[in-house]
Amino acid sequence: MKKKERLSIVKIGGNIVDNPEALKAFLADFHRLEGRKLLVHGGGVMASKMASQLGIETKMVQGRRITDGETLKLVTMVYAGWINKSMVASLQQIGCNAIGLSGADANVIPSVRRSPEPVDFGFVGDPDPEKINTAFLSQLIESKATPILCAITHDGHGSLLNTNADTIAYSVATALSKQYKTSLYYCFEKEGVLRDLNDPLSLIPSMNKAECDKYKLQGIIADGMIPKLDNSFRAIENGVSRVIILHAQNLLNQQGTVLR
Amino acid sequence: MKKKERLSIVKIGGNIVDNPEALKAFLADFHRLEGRKLLVHGGGVMASKMASQLGIETKMVQGRRITDGETLKLVTMVYAGWINKSMVASLQQIGCNAIGLSGADANVIPSVRRSPEPVDFGFVGDPDPEKINTAFLSQLIESKATPILCAITHDGHGSLLNTNADTIAYSVATALSKQYKTSLYYCFEKEGVLRDLNDPLSLIPSMNKAECDKYKLQGIIADGMIPKLDNSFRAIENGVSRVIILHAQNLLNQQGTVLR
Repeated sequence: MKKKERLSIVKIGGNIVDNPEALKAFLADFHRLEGRKLLVHGGGVMASKMASQLGIETKMVQGRRITDGETLKLVTMVYAGWINKSMVASLQQIGCNAIGLSGADANVIPSVRRSPEPVDFGFVGDPDPEKINTAFLSQLIESKATPILCAITHDGHGSLLNTNADTIAYSVATALSKQYKTSLYYCFEKEGVLRDLNDPLSLIPSMNKAECDKYKLQGIIADGMIPKLDNSFRAIENGVSRVIILHAQNLLNQQGTVLR
Repeated sequence: MKKKERLSIVKIGGNIVDNPEALKAFLADFHRLEGRKLLVHGGGVMASKMASQLGIETKMVQGRRITDGETLKLVTMVYAGWINKSMVASLQQIGCNAIGLSGADANVIPSVRRSPEPVDFGFVGDPDPEKINTAFLSQLIESKATPILCAITHDGHGSLLNTNADTIAYSVATALSKQYKTSLYYCFEKEGVLRDLNDPLSLIPSMNKAECDKYKLQGIIADGMIPKLDNSFRAIENGVSRVIILHAQNLLNQQGTVLR
């Protein structure tokens, strides 16, 4: 059997995306990351700012945005428009052949709209990892292009869907792990999973699922970290070789919380 | 020598794009258009509406938008974000494997920012037809994907640029005409070039450059029609086989003004 090539899938969060200096440094590091790669980005911070500028109320339930028609338009403009294309232009400038895509483009990420029960999130969907267009993504990657995926997908029935960027990263990593030896990096503005959110020295350097469950019970792991970790362990169970949760500035030295 | 395959390049204007019913009918016709194809879209009408919603002043000189930093963000959100991705989702729904791109993606359309003299248009650029990434576009087209290009390009130095969609259509058609027998269709909300703007029966069915110059002197051709016709004749001089200016609803019967 042919040895699998390595592929890095990097997710970058909204707080970094909204900070021009930090984003510039991160994109330079991402470009330096060797080998085949793919980037997934959020943008929720900027979307909330733009919503308030347009007088659209931001409603969050369980850390997720309730997405009515106006909000769908807004997040599509911000994620697929300004953030995605600015990042592509910055990467092209430094010699990375970036190509920005939503999940609708070339049907890269077909998704299923969430059931309106128990919470009606509106135009929100979850990707089906079995249906990711891996043929097209790997065609791009093998032709030396670097896909930059935003957090917008579609349902195949004409509707765009707001989709959690962590979940996109998990879904794409899982789907591509059949073909590549895949590492998944969740980059954000903390050092990794911390025992104390205010103390970067309290980093938990590695964790398995049983330990994670224990930390959850103790309340050490809470809020937005829970779906990130759930996605991470699911990725490992489904064939992803390595998942690291780390500070965006540590992408090259890869120091953070390694999940086992 | 191998016979060139046919390629249709269709430009759709902002008034149709801003009308959901007309756009839906147009996209269905575009999907029915046989063979290899590519779509270029504007969106100026929606951009102006969104600008007024955000309290950004719309300044036009010679029919072109003055694009400061805020306006660049706005048009990128509207053109590359909402309009482009909505059209892609609609096309995917009806079975057309659309992929939406700005000129920055995969460096498809490198452009040159306009000189600030005599008019400083801001972040506005013109594509260099010699530098269009025809290899990537034809790779997509030959793999049965349909590129959907919005009116945003980049300068290769990290800046996105607002770019006239008619000019993008001309530049891409000219560049791809080396490889394909290319037809260029400028679709908008009139029957074609009219002697009297208010009378659809006054259609000029065909025109060569000398006749066009005569009509310009007579004032029959004016305003936004001038750059459209200049682009059209330049396209013919540079290898495009056929250019037709027509109503969006006539794409399939191809009735309009044929340029010779």
